[in-house]
Amino acid sequence: MRFYLDHAATTLLRPQARDAWLAAGQIIGNASSTHGAGQDARRVLEESRERAAVMLGCDPIEVVFTSGGTESINTALQGLWAARPSGTDSIVLPDAEHHSTMDTVAALARGGARVRPVPVDGAGRIDMAAFAIASESAALATALVANNEVGTVNDASALARAATAAGVPLHLDAVAAWGYLPLSFRALRADAPAGAGLVAMSVTGHKIGAPVGTGALVVARSARMTALLHGGAQQRGLRAGTQDIAGAAAFAVALECAEADREAESTRLALLRDRLIDGIRKSVPGAELLGDPSDRLPGNAHLLFPGAVGESLQFLLDMAGIAASTGSACQAGVAEPSHVVMAMGRSERDARSVLRFSLGSSSADADVDAVIAAIGDAVARASGAHTAERS
Amino acid sequence: MRFYLDHAATTLLRPQARDAWLAAGQIIGNASSTHGAGQDARRVLEESRERAAVMLGCDPIEVVFTSGGTESINTALQGLWAARPSGTDSIVLPDAEHHSTMDTVAALARGGARVRPVPVDGAGRIDMAAFAIASESAALATALVANNEVGTVNDASALARAATAAGVPLHLDAVAAWGYLPLSFRALRADAPAGAGLVAMSVTGHKIGAPVGTGALVVARSARMTALLHGGAQQRGLRAGTQDIAGAAAFAVALECAEADREAESTRLALLRDRLIDGIRKSVPGAELLGDPSDRLPGNAHLLFPGAVGESLQFLLDMAGIAASTGSACQAGVAEPSHVVMAMGRSERDARSVLRFSLGSSSADADVDAVIAAIGDAVARASGAHTAERS
Repeated sequence: MRFYLDHAATTLLRPQARDAWLAAGQIIGNASSTHGAGQDARRVLEESRERAAVMLGCDPIEVVFTSGGTESINTALQGLWAARPSGTDSIVLPDAEHHSTMDTVAALARGGARVRPVPVDGAGRIDMAAFAIASESAALATALVANNEVGTVNDASALARAATAAGVPLHLDAVAAWGYLPLSFRALRADAPAGAGLVAMSVTGHKIGAPVGTGALVVARSARMTALLHGGAQQRGLRAGTQDIAGAAAFAVALECAEADREAESTRLALLRDRLIDGIRKSVPGAELLGDPSDRLPGNAHLLFPGAVGESLQFLLDMAGIAASTGSACQAGVAEPSHVVMAMGRSERDARSVLRFSLGSSSADADVDAVIAAIGDAVARASGAHTAERS
Repeated sequence: MRFYLDHAATTLLRPQARDAWLAAGQIIGNASSTHGAGQDARRVLEESRERAAVMLGCDPIEVVFTSGGTESINTALQGLWAARPSGTDSIVLPDAEHHSTMDTVAALARGGARVRPVPVDGAGRIDMAAFAIASESAALATALVANNEVGTVNDASALARAATAAGVPLHLDAVAAWGYLPLSFRALRADAPAGAGLVAMSVTGHKIGAPVGTGALVVARSARMTALLHGGAQQRGLRAGTQDIAGAAAFAVALECAEADREAESTRLALLRDRLIDGIRKSVPGAELLGDPSDRLPGNAHLLFPGAVGESLQFLLDMAGIAASTGSACQAGVAEPSHVVMAMGRSERDARSVLRFSLGSSSADADVDAVIAAIGDAVARASGAHTAERS
């Protein structure tokens, strides 16, 4: 029996998204071709773009389909940087961002960008005062809506308002948040002037039940951004390449399903999650919930098990058929302490003693029960591993 | 009744690739996760990588899965440029490359790269003597194996040998060629020294029956290349992002199917194509086959109809249910003369009077018959459109 509690790494493909993919895959034609077959493809593509735009709260022309979150984030940050206002040279970077953001900014820093770090508090929440100050005369700012590791939800409206006030272009990484929080690009952008305030928002398909390899970058009409992938003039010249109409159709359907399910599913997952957290704490009295206790993703339970090695804990749970994560999956192949947990003021040792359980569409009572049944023994066995490692 | 003769723009999804996509899509797990579910995903991913490597003639570690040709080409050119040998500042660029290559090099030129153009002959074939000279002390060179518009096949071995001799890293764009020509990355690389000769080769999925949004960049172990998409350490750090295991599985299967069918299918398509060309010439005595008459892609028939406007011709054929192309689909939305045809020494007017018919898996006698039946009338009606445009 397998218990999958790593939906934040990737979740199940929705049957509706799979069916949309299969249906669109029947169409033979490149959406850039002007003949009938191409126009059939184009109709499906543009209908998908319109449906995605309704869900994302933007105009269809603002939806740039990408291959997923990493490409969206890279396109936004590299593209905003390349088109930065003259006289600016700084990037506002909160301390607990996803690696895809951190590594892109690091690459830009090697090319001359100056990084203005912004601290997060003990719950992983971005320090809004520091964010506002750092944004003054910056080239661009970026921020996570919801932290992918500890699940803490930032105030997206406040981030957007701060960027508008500073006149700086802001990219929001909504990869972990979209589908769980009400997010309208248009509402967040509000009355920001051209090229400032919220100008770009990244979303990925495989976190909401669309195929891996789908996603979008919402780019405001007025954004000043250059392309990362050069080639044809597709998608406002911001993303060249033959457009994946089957992927776009599946992504649009997944967005609709996620939004339709959002409130009920968030409530259901939060109940399951709270029972999971309570059960773990009863089994392991020293366990501590990290991240904001209330402003958090409904499916996220991120716990510190003092004295236990997260890697060992993950391994022992895996032996019991339970899939959980020590950090973002993108880095989980490498045994590094969580930079997010350390940014929250914890020690490196604590940052190696955490485990994230993330619930999603397939999660049920059995998953919670399995973790509660296994966690006590696993923590007992994984404790002292720090000591063993030192000997 | 629809007749699709634009397989070079995009072709049909192979049932075997679709089935592989569906099967791999059942797996829940991020291939970067270390738990059992993640390792199940990773096994499928790495098996797909191994199978792709056998087909591409390289080591599995040299296969970098991408979202397709445009991303592969951008990654290769931008990545080789960023890691160029010190003291080099030039990019060798033949005149008849795909827009994705031209536009990427143009972007690099805006950043300081110097472009060394290489002429093509009247058949669209790269001038090898000029290529060899231009490669001396260049930062990098790039070349199409088979021209996507006119179908002319370059000598990939000679290109690779010239790059090896010059000590320059070479990227080959095999997007249009793979599946129709025997291409082994290892054989082409031969005994090139580290970092020189053939170091990267782009292939895309949707030209060989894999889903749109899949593809690969083969990157030699010794290549000096930086990543374009930053984030996790996936794929040797050359391409961050959650890996699309369903896409990888489908792509690997499509590569195998394409290779298994290659000889028989090439023979079948060449016969159909020759009948198409003969029939068109009988109907339109002034029609001229462009590109090399023998060293060409088996499914490619690219014709000049002097005095006729390609756009009008395409439209009139489309009314008869026939899908053909005036140029690469990536630019076909924009009515520009073909830069490939102009590079072959033709006038701008000639470059607006061409039509490409490209055959593929679904092509049959009925497609050829339909074109032969319709072309005479279409050319008659599309002729004089130049004159009409001027009035």
